[in-house]
Amino acid sequence: MYTNNTIIKMVFDRWYALIKNCDTILDAITDEQLQKEIAPNRNRGTYLLGHLIAVHDDMLPLLGLGERQYPELTEPFIKSADKVVTQVPSAATLRAIWTKQCELLKQKFEAVKAEEWFEKHTAVSAEDFMNEPHRNKLNIILTRTTHLAYHTGLLALLK
Amino acid sequence: MYTNNTIIKMVFDRWYALIKNCDTILDAITDEQLQKEIAPNRNRGTYLLGHLIAVHDDMLPLLGLGERQYPELTEPFIKSADKVVTQVPSAATLRAIWTKQCELLKQKFEAVKAEEWFEKHTAVSAEDFMNEPHRNKLNIILTRTTHLAYHTGLLALLK
Repeated sequence: MYTNNTIIKMVFDRWYALIKNCDTILDAITDEQLQKEIAPNRNRGTYLLGHLIAVHDDMLPLLGLGERQYPELTEPFIKSADKVVTQVPSAATLRAIWTKQCELLKQKFEAVKAEEWFEKHTAVSAEDFMNEPHRNKLNIILTRTTHLAYHTGLLALLK
Repeated sequence: MYTNNTIIKMVFDRWYALIKNCDTILDAITDEQLQKEIAPNRNRGTYLLGHLIAVHDDMLPLLGLGERQYPELTEPFIKSADKVVTQVPSAATLRAIWTKQCELLKQKFEAVKAEEWFEKHTAVSAEDFMNEPHRNKLNIILTRTTHLAYHTGLLALLK
């Protein structure tokens, strides 16, 4: 009653819906708003956007789709809390990177064959994958989709 | 290389991880904190929790697993914005309902056979389902999981 394609569509429908949701928020706010804290003494919008970019960038090596494009964003946006690293890209730069990255990921994802989504990702050994077949490439998309949803709700507070 | 069970596990791993995440937040805050706004002039924690309960309650008829248990929560927590309906359950009552509901849903979900997750949910016609096989029961779990992630990020602001 279902095919690989059905499952893949279910997961990517969610991924692209959340990306669109995030884009709608970004389009509705100015760079000045994006630089503000989402709530008093909380992360700034720029930190959340930088964090999403850094996490999504890491999907490339995890999925065997190439090297990270922005390795310099790991330190300020994954390893460090907001405001710890003072030298970070501007709101305008982060927006430009986000748009370019979404386009690159879309191209890369669309070139993956259906059956490849059920192969292991690069952070699991072939041995572990025998017993844990859910640790496949599609599961990376799924976990990053809920991660994106979590942070999209926070970014929406800037509106 | 994969079975129904692999896909089902991928989706439910996310669902239960988010439920646990939400429980951890609820355990870390008092009823007084839960009644506060997540940010100035934003929804209160009780509204978000009531909203999640009402949305999750609606999964029962959508999945053909029974009637809604809390139909009275639709008006204040789905149809209305926060503070519009003044007569709403207390923070303590909402917590009790949440715990009971999570347990009930878990029991109901575990009784569903693997192949049934790929059957149509009750809000799609048999005719539409022929062309849109992704509109299955498992997709309800998936969409509610990203919805839960979105609101869990907001509830975390109460900590």
